[in-house]
Amino acid sequence: LPGKEASPSAAAPCVAPLQWEGRWVMYDHSTGRNVRASVSYDGLKQRLRVLQRNQKHAPCQRFFEYIYLYQSMVMFQIDQKTKDCSKISLTEAWDPFDIPDNSTFEDQYFIGGPGDNVEVQEWSDRKPARRHEAWVGIYTLKDCYPVQETYAKNSSVITSTRFFNIQLGISDPDVFTPPSTCQSARPERMAESDC
Amino acid sequence: LPGKEASPSAAAPCVAPLQWEGRWVMYDHSTGRNVRASVSYDGLKQRLRVLQRNQKHAPCQRFFEYIYLYQSMVMFQIDQKTKDCSKISLTEAWDPFDIPDNSTFEDQYFIGGPGDNVEVQEWSDRKPARRHEAWVGIYTLKDCYPVQETYAKNSSVITSTRFFNIQLGISDPDVFTPPSTCQSARPERMAESDC
Repeated sequence: LPGKEASPSAAAPCVAPLQWEGRWVMYDHSTGRNVRASVSYDGLKQRLRVLQRNQKHAPCQRFFEYIYLYQSMVMFQIDQKTKDCSKISLTEAWDPFDIPDNSTFEDQYFIGGPGDNVEVQEWSDRKPARRHEAWVGIYTLKDCYPVQETYAKNSSVITSTRFFNIQLGISDPDVFTPPSTCQSARPERMAESDC
Repeated sequence: LPGKEASPSAAAPCVAPLQWEGRWVMYDHSTGRNVRASVSYDGLKQRLRVLQRNQKHAPCQRFFEYIYLYQSMVMFQIDQKTKDCSKISLTEAWDPFDIPDNSTFEDQYFIGGPGDNVEVQEWSDRKPARRHEAWVGIYTLKDCYPVQETYAKNSSVITSTRFFNIQLGISDPDVFTPPSTCQSARPERMAESDC
C-alpha cells in the first residue's frame, strides 16, 4: 500500500536460478548508451554468452557476440557480420547473478498494480559504516528471477542492467563454444563503432 | 522467448490510469542520487503530490513534501520537519504519466520468468529523423500501470523514475491542499542538504 513501510518477510535472500536464457538492456551511465542483448547464463560452469541485438538508427555500429568463460578466465569477442574474433583475458572473478548471503534487505514491492503485477525484493551490499552501496539487485519474490542489477563505483553509477523474458535452462549449450575464427584470435578488443 | 523479436500486437498505446497512489524511485543521473517517495497522481485535475521518504544513512538530508498544481502553475515545497514552505512558479506544462497517441512502439516483454512475471510494453518519442529518443515509457500491458519513465536531454539521460505499488484512485484528496504555513511562503526553493 502507498506510504506503508515494507515489512521484510525476508530473513534470507532467495536463491536465483543457476541456468537461464533471456534478454537484457544494459545502460552505461558513462556513455549514455543502452545496449540490448540476448543472454545465456550458466552459473554452474561460470560462463555467459551475450548476443548484441541489432538496433535501428545505429549506422556506424558494429554488433558483437561475447562469450565469457570464467573457469578459463578468458572472453571471446566476435563480430557478428565478419566473424572477426578477439580473445581477451578476464581480470575480475566470476560474479554470479544472484543475491549474496550477506546482503542487506532494502525493500519489497509490486511492479505494476492490482491484477497486473510482479512482486520483487531489493537487496544491496550496503553496510552500516558505508553510506553508498556499490551493488543493488532486484529479484522476483517467488522464483528469484533477476529483474535489475546496478553497479556503482566511487558513488557514480557505472551500469544498470534490466533483465526480462527469462526462461529456465540452456536450450543450446553450443552457444558457449567460440566459432573456428577464434582459433587465430587477435588479442585486442575491437571497437564498437566504425565511424 | 529469448532471441525472438517482439511482435507488436500494439496498434495503439494503452490508456494509463488517471488517478493513482503509489511509490517511485527517481534516479537523477547528474547527481547520482536515488530519491524515494510516496506519490499521489491526479491526471484529471493535473496535480501531483510527492512525499519524500526518510532514508537511513542520510544525516544532512532534509526531507520535503512537494505539491504540484499545474492548473495554477505553482508548486509548494514543504519541509517535513519544520513545515517551512516555499511557493515556486512552474514553467513547464503539465506532462501526464501516460503514453501519447503519436508514440513509437519499441518493445514488449515479460519482467520476470515463467509463473512469476508481468508483461510490459516500451514506447518512446523516437522519430525516424532523430537518432536519440528524449522519452521512454514502460507500462504494464494489461492495465497500463506505469513501470518506468526515462527523460533525456542532449543525448544524456537526466532522470529515470521507477514506479511501484500502484493503487487506483486518490484515498485522501486533502493531500493536494498545502498546509497553513504556505500562506506566507517564501519564493525561493529550499536546498535539499543541510551541511
